[in-house]
Amino acid sequence: MNGATGQSTSASPRDNREAILDAAARTIARRGVRGLRVEDVASEAGVSAALLYYHFESRSGLVKAALEHASEQAPSAALRNGTAPQVGEDATGYEAVEAALIAELDEEPSVRDNAVVWGEVSASAVFEPDLRDDVRRVTEAWREAVAAGIRTGIADGSIRGDIDADESAELLITLVDGLCTRWLAGAMDTRSARGLLRAGLSRALRPD
Amino acid sequence: MNGATGQSTSASPRDNREAILDAAARTIARRGVRGLRVEDVASEAGVSAALLYYHFESRSGLVKAALEHASEQAPSAALRNGTAPQVGEDATGYEAVEAALIAELDEEPSVRDNAVVWGEVSASAVFEPDLRDDVRRVTEAWREAVAAGIRTGIADGSIRGDIDADESAELLITLVDGLCTRWLAGAMDTRSARGLLRAGLSRALRPD
Repeated sequence: MNGATGQSTSASPRDNREAILDAAARTIARRGVRGLRVEDVASEAGVSAALLYYHFESRSGLVKAALEHASEQAPSAALRNGTAPQVGEDATGYEAVEAALIAELDEEPSVRDNAVVWGEVSASAVFEPDLRDDVRRVTEAWREAVAAGIRTGIADGSIRGDIDADESAELLITLVDGLCTRWLAGAMDTRSARGLLRAGLSRALRPD
Repeated sequence: MNGATGQSTSASPRDNREAILDAAARTIARRGVRGLRVEDVASEAGVSAALLYYHFESRSGLVKAALEHASEQAPSAALRNGTAPQVGEDATGYEAVEAALIAELDEEPSVRDNAVVWGEVSASAVFEPDLRDDVRRVTEAWREAVAAGIRTGIADGSIRGDIDADESAELLITLVDGLCTRWLAGAMDTRSARGLLRAGLSRALRPD
């Protein structure tokens, strides 16, 4: 990727697409979805507005692609394969789920930007019904990834066997969503948010 | 209150203030905080913009007062006195906490409007640091009300005694916040959101 600097017009279509999505996340993280102008994202990505429209068709297409991108980049996406990049291969299922969800609350700019994109698009869906299917779809994918991680933990004995993996996954991602809102709004610091998430995970998943 | 209809200029200052705050909640619920114009709220309330500025000084003052108002109107506020209006006086602490939190997810317009105000102001605080202290303060008040309800339940034996009431309250209100976001965004229906909240409450608070 050649991202925010220089001109990207000579880059491959795939590189351009990635650069535009990263620029969209940064722009949304600075000013929100509702103030988002296609021209500002193009300028941030160092491409023409025409190229942006070529890839995403419309402002709405760009917002939806930004949500999809944030979803794919999310640290818990890797749980779909029963693992998490934050822990070694010999980690238990519990450790992988914990590490992946804790990693969603990270001050690293690209992680934070993605969290803002997620929160912003969800909050905007209250007023833009057109976005609801997309919010539902990425939420579903997230739930499935976390449920897969929980099933791995039930199989290796690190997570209690008497719970419904799907319901537990839904409860946990909803908790992470609530924590993210509060954390991004500056109403809770990173350490407290992570501590609360660890407590919630322990209560929900630890064997007695 | 003489609310949205007719002219309120002959009403008492307190009635006018209430009417303006109700109008602000309805206006925010329709179009969000970020598109909020003081003139639109005044028109919705049937008062002059001058009267609105007299009561709230500025757009920012109005937004903060709307958050405070939503917080005071929230069904869980009554838990501060160890009870909930949704259940009888002989209800257990567990039943009161459950009823009050479930009541936050209600399609009744004024409840839904207040939930949108809460979500909108929290989401806006990501971009407006000026709002953060207010979000922190109302969240704290909510946590304390729920913690008081939990303590009542611990005392009457309906809630397990080995938990930290404050931490449990924080986890539960964060879960409700996450559920509200998804519910308002149309990514989860009222019944599913309530079912998930009941499951979360049971796991967090029920004695073994």
